[in-house]
Amino acid sequence: MPEKTFIVSHWMEGTGPYAEVAVSSRVRLARNIRDIPFPYLASNTQTNKVREMICSGAAEQENKFDDLHFLKMEEAENIDRHVLVEKHLISPLLAKESHNSGVFLRKDEAVSIMVNEEDHLRIQSIFPGLQLEKAWEEVDSFDNLFENKLDYAFHERYGYLTACPTNVGTGLRASVMLHVPALIKTKQFNRILGALSQVGVAVRGLYGEGTDIIGNMVQISNQITLGQSEKEIIRNLFSVTRQVIEQENAARQSLLNENREVIADQSWRALGVLKYAHLLSSQEAIQLLSDIRLGFELGLVPRIERRLLNQMLVLIRPACLQMLAGKDLDARERDQERARQIRESLKGLAS
Amino acid sequence: MPEKTFIVSHWMEGTGPYAEVAVSSRVRLARNIRDIPFPYLASNTQTNKVREMICSGAAEQENKFDDLHFLKMEEAENIDRHVLVEKHLISPLLAKESHNSGVFLRKDEAVSIMVNEEDHLRIQSIFPGLQLEKAWEEVDSFDNLFENKLDYAFHERYGYLTACPTNVGTGLRASVMLHVPALIKTKQFNRILGALSQVGVAVRGLYGEGTDIIGNMVQISNQITLGQSEKEIIRNLFSVTRQVIEQENAARQSLLNENREVIADQSWRALGVLKYAHLLSSQEAIQLLSDIRLGFELGLVPRIERRLLNQMLVLIRPACLQMLAGKDLDARERDQERARQIRESLKGLAS
Repeated sequence: MPEKTFIVSHWMEGTGPYAEVAVSSRVRLARNIRDIPFPYLASNTQTNKVREMICSGAAEQENKFDDLHFLKMEEAENIDRHVLVEKHLISPLLAKESHNSGVFLRKDEAVSIMVNEEDHLRIQSIFPGLQLEKAWEEVDSFDNLFENKLDYAFHERYGYLTACPTNVGTGLRASVMLHVPALIKTKQFNRILGALSQVGVAVRGLYGEGTDIIGNMVQISNQITLGQSEKEIIRNLFSVTRQVIEQENAARQSLLNENREVIADQSWRALGVLKYAHLLSSQEAIQLLSDIRLGFELGLVPRIERRLLNQMLVLIRPACLQMLAGKDLDARERDQERARQIRESLKGLAS
Repeated sequence: MPEKTFIVSHWMEGTGPYAEVAVSSRVRLARNIRDIPFPYLASNTQTNKVREMICSGAAEQENKFDDLHFLKMEEAENIDRHVLVEKHLISPLLAKESHNSGVFLRKDEAVSIMVNEEDHLRIQSIFPGLQLEKAWEEVDSFDNLFENKLDYAFHERYGYLTACPTNVGTGLRASVMLHVPALIKTKQFNRILGALSQVGVAVRGLYGEGTDIIGNMVQISNQITLGQSEKEIIRNLFSVTRQVIEQENAARQSLLNENREVIADQSWRALGVLKYAHLLSSQEAIQLLSDIRLGFELGLVPRIERRLLNQMLVLIRPACLQMLAGKDLDARERDQERARQIRESLKGLAS
C-alpha cells in the first residue's frame, strides 16, 4: 500500500458564516430513473445500465463536469473507499457494496455524486460554515443537468420517488455539523434536543445516524422531505441552526464569564497532551480537539487554524491513518499513528 | 512580601549512588543537655539558656561553623520558616512554635541543626542519592563538636535521653526518600511494605509521618534507636534500601519489557500537561513529575535533569510558591502559580 497525502476537502477550510460553531453544511438529493428498479432490487444489467445512463448524461455536460472525475467503486481500493467515507464524501453503504456503483468527485471535494447507492443518484454538496443555501444551489444545478438527460421517477402527488420512504417528496436532506461544547458543558443541550425534535429536526453524532455525540459535535438535519418545498426545508433548517448557534455563543460567553481559567486550562492541557502523547484513542483525540477548538474560539489559546482542527478530525480516523502510513495497522498501531500524525500537525504551533 | 529566588539544596542535586531510585538520604541525631528540662517542659529562661549554650559552643568552633548561620525562629518570617519545612531542612514543629528555638543552616543546606525543637539539639544532614554513611559522618562530626562543649543527658544503660521515648538510645533516625513507581504500578509494594515492617523499617509518605504515599515517593527509616550502634542502624537501613532499589529496578525492567509504549506515552503526556497546564493541584503535579521521572530513568523521554525534577517537587509547595510570587496566594492562585512555575522550569526543554 503506497503512502498517500491527505487532500483537504473544501468543507474543512473552516471558513463561511458562523464558522465559530458551524463546521460544515451539507445538502443531498436522492433521485431515481423512471421504470428501473431501485439498486437493491435491480439486476446487474439494470444497475449497469443506470450507471451508463448517468455517466453519459454527465459526459454531455462537459463544462459542468470538467472538475469532476468518476470512480467505479469496484475498481477503487478498499482503503480509498473508506477514506472517502471518513471525509463524508460517500456513505458507508457505498464503500461496502458495489452494485455497479460509483461516485463523481469534484476536485475541491465540495461536490460528490453517488451512483447506485440506495438510490440511482445521490447528489451531495458540502460547504464550510453555515452555507446551506450555497450547498443547495450546487446540488440543484447538478440536479437540473441530470433532469434534462434522465427521466426521473416522479409522482404527481408524492414527488420524487426514493428507495426509502423517508426520502420521498423532495428527496432532500440538509444537515449542519455544529460544535456545541458550551451547550453540552452547561447541560443545556438536552433541553434543545427536545425542542429540535418538535420542529422536525433530527440530531445525530459526528459520524451520522446511530452514532453517539462525541467531541461535542452534532449533526442536525431535516426529518421531513415531503410537504415542504426544497427552499422551505433549507430555510427552516437554516433558521433553527442559527438559533442553536446563538444559544451556543451565549453559553460560551457565560462559561467565559464564570469559568474562564478552567476553560483556558482545559484547552491548554488538550494542546499539551496532543502535542506530546504517543498513544491516542480516536475518542480521546476527538474530545481533546474539541477542548482546543473551544479555547481557540474564545481567544484563550493561540491561533490554531480551524482548517487544521477539521483536518485532524478526519485524518485520525482508521482508513486515513492507514492511507497516511501506507500500510494496514492494528488498533495499537493506529493509536500510535494517530498520536504521530497529530504531533506532526501541531509541530511548530506557538506554545 | 518581596519576591525571592529559590535556593537549591544539596540534596536536590540528583547525584550520588543509586540516584535513579534514591532521591535523598537523611540522618538526624537528637541530643539534650543534662539537668535542663526538655524544651516543652522548660521555662523561658531555661530554653533561652539552652540556646545560648549551644550558640556559644558553636562560636568556639569557628572553622566548622564558618559556612553555617544561625536563625532565631522568632525573628524569621513565617514564609521563610515554611519554606525551610518544604525543603525538609526543619520540622513543621519548629516552624510552628518557638521556645527560644532556632536553626543553624549550612550554605549548601546539607546540614541543619535545630535548637529547642522537641529536643534541645537536633543535628540533621541530607545528601542526594543513597549516601547514609556520608550523612552520618556529617552529623557525627557536629555531634562530636557539641559533645566537647556541652554536657549531654546520657544514661549508662539507656544511652542518650530524648523527649520522646522512641528516640532514646542512639537518638538516631536515618531515612531515605525513594521513588518506586514500578513497585507501585506492578502492585508489589504492599508485599514489600510488610517485609519492611518485619525488619524494623518504617515507611512514610513524601511529607513524612502520617502523610499518604503520593507521586510514588516513599521515605523509609529505622524504627529502632535502642540496642544497636549508630553504625549498625545505618548499615542495616543501607542494606534494606539497596534491596528495595534492586526490586524497583527489576520491576522497571519488566514494565519496560511488557509495557514500554504505555509507559513512554504516560511520560510524554505528563510532560505535555506540565508544559501546558494553567491550573495544577499539588497532588496532580507530583504524580506527573513521577511519570516524567520514570520515563526519563528508563530513557523513554528526553534528558530532564534530576535536579530539576527534585527542585520542582519542592517549589510547587505552598510556601515556596508564595515566596516566589512575593505575595500571599489563595488556593486557586496557588494552582495558577504552580502551573506557571512548572511551565517556566520546563521551558526550552526539548520536545
